[in-house]
This record gives sequence, C-alpha cells and structure tokens, in this order.
Amino acid sequence: MIRDLVIKNRSYRRFDASVKIGKEQIEQWIELARLSASGRNMQPLKYAICTDEKMNGQIFPNLGWAGYLKDWNGPEEKERPVAYVAILLDKSLAENYYCDDGIAIQSILLGAVEDGFGGCTIGSVNKSKVAKILKLPEHLEILWLIALGKPAEKVVLDTAKEGDIKYWRDENEIHHVPKRPLEEIIFRSI
Amino acid sequence: MIRDLVIKNRSYRRFDASVKIGKEQIEQWIELARLSASGRNMQPLKYAICTDEKMNGQIFPNLGWAGYLKDWNGPEEKERPVAYVAILLDKSLAENYYCDDGIAIQSILLGAVEDGFGGCTIGSVNKSKVAKILKLPEHLEILWLIALGKPAEKVVLDTAKEGDIKYWRDENEIHHVPKRPLEEIIFRSI
Repeated sequence: MIRDLVIKNRSYRRFDASVKIGKEQIEQWIELARLSASGRNMQPLKYAICTDEKMNGQIFPNLGWAGYLKDWNGPEEKERPVAYVAILLDKSLAENYYCDDGIAIQSILLGAVEDGFGGCTIGSVNKSKVAKILKLPEHLEILWLIALGKPAEKVVLDTAKEGDIKYWRDENEIHHVPKRPLEEIIFRSI
Repeated sequence: MIRDLVIKNRSYRRFDASVKIGKEQIEQWIELARLSASGRNMQPLKYAICTDEKMNGQIFPNLGWAGYLKDWNGPEEKERPVAYVAILLDKSLAENYYCDDGIAIQSILLGAVEDGFGGCTIGSVNKSKVAKILKLPEHLEILWLIALGKPAEKVVLDTAKEGDIKYWRDENEIHHVPKRPLEEIIFRSI
C-alpha cells in the first residue's frame, strides 16, 4: 500500500553511519525519478550521487539541519548520512522546472524507504561550496540535497493544534511532526 | 513495488467519463499529501476537490491540454476528467512553498493510480476564472490543477534519442513519452 510507504517516508536526520548504501542502489531510486512526470516532459533535472566517505565529510559542514531544533546542530559523526543526492537544474536545457523537483524527490525517497533506508531533503545548503566539492559545471545548479542512510531515529506524526506546526523532540529523543488535520487543508470538497 | 506504481502513474489526458470518482475517495488521496514532507513543515498547501459534473463543465474550457499535440484540443466530452483537485497556496500561511507542490502531487497521483484511476497535472489554467468557479477567497492561489478519471488511453515510455523529448501519438492513438536515459541524467555517481 502506498499509504504505508508514505507514512514510513519521514524526514530522517539521524542515521546508522555504519550501514552503507551502494551507489548502484541509489541509481535505482534515481530511475524512479526518471520514470516520473516532468512539466512539458522537458526533464531538465540532473543528479549527482555521492557515497564517498571523504567527500561526504566535506559536504556535511555546508548543510543546515532542522531549523526548529535550536539546541541541535545536526547529527553526530556516527549518525551522519552515508550518501547524498544533489538535485540539479540543467540550465542549458531549461530555466523553469515547474514542480519536477518535488515529484522527483518524492519518487526517490519512496524508493529509498521501500528498500529500508530513508532521507531528508535539505534546502539550507552552501551551494557554491558543495558545487565545488562535486565538481559541478556552471550550467548545473544545485536545487536540493537529499541526505540518505539507514534511519536511526523514531519519527512520529501528530495532529497540529491551533496551527502550531513546529516539529520537536521529546525526552526520549522521539521526533514529533505535527500535521495539519485533513479538514483544515481541504478548503472545499464538492 | 513502488516502481510498478511509478511506471503506471503516467499523465493521462483521456478518461472514461462514465466512471465517476467519489469525493471521499479523492480525500483519501489528499490524505497522502497531508502525510508527506513539507519544507519547514509549514504545510501551506490547501486543496479544493470538484466532482460536480456541472462545475467540471465550467472548469474544462479554462485548461490547456498537451502543448506538443498541435492538432488536439483536449479530450472529447466522453473522455473528459470526472474530477479536479486544485492545489492551492494559502498565502496567509506562507509565500514560499519550496517543493511541497511536486511532493503532494506525486503522493496524490500514486494514490489515484493504486486505486485504478489516474490523472494529469495541468499548469496551463486560466486561474482567475477557475478561482471564481471554485469560489476561492483571495488568499488561496491556484498553483496547479490535477485532472482525474479512469484512464482511457495507453501511454508508453520510450527512450529519448538525441534529446528529443516531445511526446507524440502514433497511428493507433498510443501516447509515447520519450524519457532521457539514466546515464544522461546522472551527472556523477561516486
């Protein structure tokens, strides 16, 4: 059931860094993005996969983690992502990528979750530095970075009350994500 | 397998208009969007569902269909969508919705496909007219319209050659969608 997979597909920010992911496996998740819809079928997105431990260590300091958790600066070494996928816009193909990025990200992460992994989409990225590390040419612009690994944290969904949507961690280190109730997000159903 | 669902989830533009979809079923697909990731967990997207035949007839003339098929003005009456979901930005919550739209759209359509339906995301929408038909308040802005129904066309994936990504229909009315090969969209895999 797609519902089970969607629920399992949480934004995981702590991983078991001892469990590696082969780049061939990640390529199969990119394949899911390849087979997904694209505005005007332009397919202007490209992907860079990094499973290299040293390079991952260079990428990590350029990422911002979990803005609402003010006392947490991101995962410790043994909980860091073991791979990254950079979602890139090929500006030589198009300037506009419509909602291709979200479609691709959802496909990739559902694939990862089905295979027992998980990830987090990060927008807070020092793009010029990560572009240098990944040796990206000028025409490939970083849109998002997906951090990947074997999840090592529990994430639960709650119902948002009075519009308070900030995620938080309880005393047992469980990560809570308040979601607006269905009746609040469906404006009209006829 | 998510791969089977992703492949089955094509952009369908011709439907069997005699097969209706209940709004309660569509609400369950919106539930999948509700349970999906949102940038900063802000969840600024709202949804309007329309399964009303008369209203659907008013919405239809405000949509552009399949830009590359120059000789086709959209589905005939008996092949028209039986429902629409408008993806809305609640501007009273946020101006920025990151890639939430694509994530939500992919979740909704994967749900529809799993249930034996399908759809097409339309960006070519006369938004002010559709907003009037749906009686949307000022703060809800239409981002996309998803047309839904029981698919009544065959859509196949081909491999794009020399960057030619325009979809086309063959003499048997089969819709062909050329996708760039995996080795072309993965810039680097380390």
